[in-house]
Amino acid sequence: MNKKFDEADLAALRAICGEARVTPRDAIGDDYCHDELGGGFARPDARVVVSSTEEISAVMRYANEHRIPVTVRGSGTGLVGGAVPLCGGILLDTSAMTRILELDEQNMTLTLEPGVLLMDVAKYAEERGYLYPPDPGEKTATIGGNISTNAGGMRAVKYGVTRDYVRALEVVFPDGTVATLGGKVAKNSSGYSLKDLVVGSEGTLAIVAKATLRLLPLPKFKISLLVPFPNLEAAIRTVPLVIRASSVPTAVEFMEREVILAAEQFQGRKFPDNSADAYLMLTFDGASQQEIDLAYEAAAKTCLEAGAIDVFLSDTQERNESIWSARGAFLEAIKASTTEMDECDVVVPRSHVADFVLFSRALQEKHGVRIRSFGHAGDGNLHIYVLRDDLDEETWKAKLAAAFGDLYAKAREFGGQVSGEHGIGFAKKPFLAESLSPEVRTIMRSIKAAFDPNGILNPGKIV
Amino acid sequence: MNKKFDEADLAALRAICGEARVTPRDAIGDDYCHDELGGGFARPDARVVVSSTEEISAVMRYANEHRIPVTVRGSGTGLVGGAVPLCGGILLDTSAMTRILELDEQNMTLTLEPGVLLMDVAKYAEERGYLYPPDPGEKTATIGGNISTNAGGMRAVKYGVTRDYVRALEVVFPDGTVATLGGKVAKNSSGYSLKDLVVGSEGTLAIVAKATLRLLPLPKFKISLLVPFPNLEAAIRTVPLVIRASSVPTAVEFMEREVILAAEQFQGRKFPDNSADAYLMLTFDGASQQEIDLAYEAAAKTCLEAGAIDVFLSDTQERNESIWSARGAFLEAIKASTTEMDECDVVVPRSHVADFVLFSRALQEKHGVRIRSFGHAGDGNLHIYVLRDDLDEETWKAKLAAAFGDLYAKAREFGGQVSGEHGIGFAKKPFLAESLSPEVRTIMRSIKAAFDPNGILNPGKIV
Repeated sequence: MNKKFDEADLAALRAICGEARVTPRDAIGDDYCHDELGGGFARPDARVVVSSTEEISAVMRYANEHRIPVTVRGSGTGLVGGAVPLCGGILLDTSAMTRILELDEQNMTLTLEPGVLLMDVAKYAEERGYLYPPDPGEKTATIGGNISTNAGGMRAVKYGVTRDYVRALEVVFPDGTVATLGGKVAKNSSGYSLKDLVVGSEGTLAIVAKATLRLLPLPKFKISLLVPFPNLEAAIRTVPLVIRASSVPTAVEFMEREVILAAEQFQGRKFPDNSADAYLMLTFDGASQQEIDLAYEAAAKTCLEAGAIDVFLSDTQERNESIWSARGAFLEAIKASTTEMDECDVVVPRSHVADFVLFSRALQEKHGVRIRSFGHAGDGNLHIYVLRDDLDEETWKAKLAAAFGDLYAKAREFGGQVSGEHGIGFAKKPFLAESLSPEVRTIMRSIKAAFDPNGILNPGKIV
Repeated sequence: MNKKFDEADLAALRAICGEARVTPRDAIGDDYCHDELGGGFARPDARVVVSSTEEISAVMRYANEHRIPVTVRGSGTGLVGGAVPLCGGILLDTSAMTRILELDEQNMTLTLEPGVLLMDVAKYAEERGYLYPPDPGEKTATIGGNISTNAGGMRAVKYGVTRDYVRALEVVFPDGTVATLGGKVAKNSSGYSLKDLVVGSEGTLAIVAKATLRLLPLPKFKISLLVPFPNLEAAIRTVPLVIRASSVPTAVEFMEREVILAAEQFQGRKFPDNSADAYLMLTFDGASQQEIDLAYEAAAKTCLEAGAIDVFLSDTQERNESIWSARGAFLEAIKASTTEMDECDVVVPRSHVADFVLFSRALQEKHGVRIRSFGHAGDGNLHIYVLRDDLDEETWKAKLAAAFGDLYAKAREFGGQVSGEHGIGFAKKPFLAESLSPEVRTIMRSIKAAFDPNGILNPGKIV
């Protein structure tokens, strides 16, 4: 057990960060007791808004000496309870660390603090002629949160995930020590890659105090295709063919009519087409018009041969926006259509996406529960939502557990992984545990102990 | 101390792998006692040629129970002594595991055994319309070796390194347990990334028994530029400008006249031009001619504005080959020009490459020793060779140590890393130790202990 958090601890934290940036338990609003996961709620003993690496280091040194749990929080947009302070203690809030420290144009890197919002990273880069490729749907997430979950997003088909763009991290270890992992270098074979271990570790190994991200030159040309199909299976089975047809698309998303209708209603705004049962949305970007044209022609031909009803081209910004803003509203639209929901964020090999989505639909009838899905057909990362609607608490819990049990078991059967981009937090811990062998779990626990021997960092998460 | 290896151990290994594939100490040729590092030599007690995951597992179980050191070896082309069995024991030879197990065209992955040579991976993929992007100079290395060192190569500027193309690994832990890390998935946020820890761990954490690699569609168009400059500094200072100018080049190499002359002499074959003091070689690839044309025009313009003497275009296969085969011969040509040499494989931020190369040249005069370099100007990974020529043993050792001390200190000052692509092995251990803080070294040692509590896997390497 950890010791009881008391006035002396509050005073010590105030001495480090100042009176105004330390909030005691009783004055902490509910907003800081949960993230976007429904059902995870815990109140910290103190919320500490940090403003520098030095402050993080001092807070950690104190917390480690006094065995006080520390949970890091950015914007709180996580979906698996990663930022919920399960064991109380300190909620270390990095959302005020919002400085962009350096754009290094020679090395094409951007160095910034962890509280910078993803949308601000994207905008800053684009205005200067660069692309920061990772593009998760939640633009108000912090970059620190994206690094902690190894966030993916829609452009992963072509560009990969957050991990691929983290060149260096300045981290604070649980004992307060500061270290730089990696560097502004494009290659590195210098010992175990601790940087890659911290990426995706959801605040359980070390605290990210600064990040150096890799940028690309901004592609000058871009085109999107909206492709209606007679049914979902035909749409998704086309995806592997399209990806091999020519250039790799930037994004390949699938959506069903019912999700589009929900988004139309939610946004009060028409989608360019809603007559077909299922759609693929494809984007291509590149450095020349010809490259884009070749890519889109090959993709359109492949889709039509595979049974697409039509191919709508979006080469104007306006039309692009109407498609992608609808895509951006799917999550909110589904949420607004029900009372409560929980999500399965599995990733499966691209070749199994169609089978997996069909499997998840069939579960609606099996378990008598509404299930909706959309997602990244190109990279195999699916977002499958089980909706509570008007089920009572007990029935909801039982049906959710049964449906999740089936979904995660099928994902394992298909060679998939528990989480494609949202992480494990505490909500997905049982499913991660099931998917790992005892030996791998033991190694993961030893790694946790190597970084955090006293177990104070984000206890109760991942392993 | 490990126990003495005896006849019973030999018999046990023969029971696992058969008589023919277990060679006892006295019958092991010198070739298996070293890699391509000059000066590292140690004889194993037994060389065991394994043929399957099951055999590796059985050998490891036996070795772990009996505390016998195990060093994995592929082709033995390493440059830092990583495959030298410093503590004797078993040399576990994976070079006979050469099966390509599956080309999965839907998921664009290639699954293979660790003994497949890099050149065979490249050829297999290209013949089927795919690209395996990592392209280290040593084509007779095994893919297992490439994964163990997180090998980089010339295309890292655009495509990244081996790590970026390893989707999944079947590994054998030191106790003989088999596990699959990762999967045929494009995203993964499911706990600590043990896969990324094993990549680059030089056979100290686990043995790679199978790998699933990510492939890309083969780019249809390709062009190379050979750009003479009046001096090396002007050449290298142009690199960051070129990389930002348009599309990212596939490769950017720099070379000096004296290295070209050595290669001409070594190959008995003329380089297309040898009149200038320094050259940049640039390659662009892409899915359309226009894309390539735009890229090369922007690059040529940038080079000429920055002081290039001329720009030679190589769009024929023949001419391309004459340039790149000379580039491929640099290492051998330098080697042939002296009696012995050692190499510094640092990586520095791209913005510091020019300063670092100038610094390394100045060391020739300072230490009275010949130094040659060439390398990956685009990704900051330099290969700097200190040549023994006719120095006596003692003088050579002293001068080498002095020059290396200066080189690694300067790399650290520039925010660089000890190894860009060759790894640490035992040759670079002191330099890695100097570059890491005590806390990071402690965590690395704990990670080693988490995987290999008995310390039997490749003892004496990295940490």
